[in-house]
Amino acid sequence: MRDAYHEELDSIGEDLVEMARLVGSAIGRATTAILDADLKLAESVIAADQKVDDLQHDLEARAIALLARQQPVATDLRIVVTSLRMSADLERSGDLAQHVAKLARLRFPERAVPNDLHATILEMGQLAQRLMAKAAEVVITKDVDLALQLESDDDEMDLLHRTLFQHLMDERWKHGIETAVDVTLLGRYYERFADHAVSVAKRVVYLVTGEYADELQPPTGPVETGAVEGA
Amino acid sequence: MRDAYHEELDSIGEDLVEMARLVGSAIGRATTAILDADLKLAESVIAADQKVDDLQHDLEARAIALLARQQPVATDLRIVVTSLRMSADLERSGDLAQHVAKLARLRFPERAVPNDLHATILEMGQLAQRLMAKAAEVVITKDVDLALQLESDDDEMDLLHRTLFQHLMDERWKHGIETAVDVTLLGRYYERFADHAVSVAKRVVYLVTGEYADELQPPTGPVETGAVEGA
Repeated sequence: MRDAYHEELDSIGEDLVEMARLVGSAIGRATTAILDADLKLAESVIAADQKVDDLQHDLEARAIALLARQQPVATDLRIVVTSLRMSADLERSGDLAQHVAKLARLRFPERAVPNDLHATILEMGQLAQRLMAKAAEVVITKDVDLALQLESDDDEMDLLHRTLFQHLMDERWKHGIETAVDVTLLGRYYERFADHAVSVAKRVVYLVTGEYADELQPPTGPVETGAVEGA
Repeated sequence: MRDAYHEELDSIGEDLVEMARLVGSAIGRATTAILDADLKLAESVIAADQKVDDLQHDLEARAIALLARQQPVATDLRIVVTSLRMSADLERSGDLAQHVAKLARLRFPERAVPNDLHATILEMGQLAQRLMAKAAEVVITKDVDLALQLESDDDEMDLLHRTLFQHLMDERWKHGIETAVDVTLLGRYYERFADHAVSVAKRVVYLVTGEYADELQPPTGPVETGAVEGA
């Protein structure tokens, strides 16, 4: 019985990794879609989010069944509860990738991102994808050092976000309000995506070390990280 | 033992209601702070969020202890797991109220919201506060009809959000890019705050009816609800 139980725990972990893989791919492809104004790619990202939602649904049902049937305590209990939280982070990350793709679709055949911001948005998209890949690796390896590394990667995202705001606030901004609104929302989506990746990694730290404090100071939004303040 | 157990369950419910009360008050006061450029009020909202975070911390620790000690099944298990999720929604709502207050602080002594958007932002703030008050009532009463009512209230929020975007996209917009960025973020904060209130109510529906599907389609962001598309 205990073996079936641990098999089930492992399979929950595998689903988390699969979710992270899917949303990492989604943010990368959504970024390509918005930079290239590629409607087909955007549509495929939008449609693919259902798979992430289904995985989360399935994972949650199995986690709750596991709690009811096996009544784990101590570490095992923490693993199950933490998995539920990670799956919520990942599901939300999928939504954010979908938001990027929907913005690409909304502006099609125009490109939502002006040329002088292309490089910054590309970097944000790549960094977001990299953060999620590292988060998945942290879930697999339980490597606390790697988990902590995600926080400094996230600082890089804050810097990129600040760069975006500097462009926006530059008096020479010539792309009009609609693009300013689009870019503001895009910046927020990438920032929040990165926050969720960091959150997944932090939850692994909590599992491994039992240290809870960090998890209770959830990643902050752009305003207080200085993205607006720095603008 | 079962009595102490149900007392503990009740007290978790009371903490959820208290969190909802605090974040409802926070969004109302943050809205006043941003409309009046009231720095002291903004600072008090920013500081008060710690209380919400502490409540969540405490609630989570007790919920996990309860799972370990009492090993609830069926409905009781669902209540505990759902409470964990609701507390995450409420904690995040508190962050969003804090974001509004931080924007008020950032722009002080200027007012971040131009006069012609004052009424719309006021309505968004009031509606957000009202939604959270109703969500708290749903937690207390388990009233499924009231819970479903929150969804139509949320449609009202979408309409207000769309109004905001119509102002932004109006060719006569004369407030510049910085204000456009601020208003875009504010709109997003209120929209997400409302989403979390709706989410709390939906989780009660899940508890009462066991109906899961709705909960798996979490409230969507502004882009796909047409706030941008409608603009």
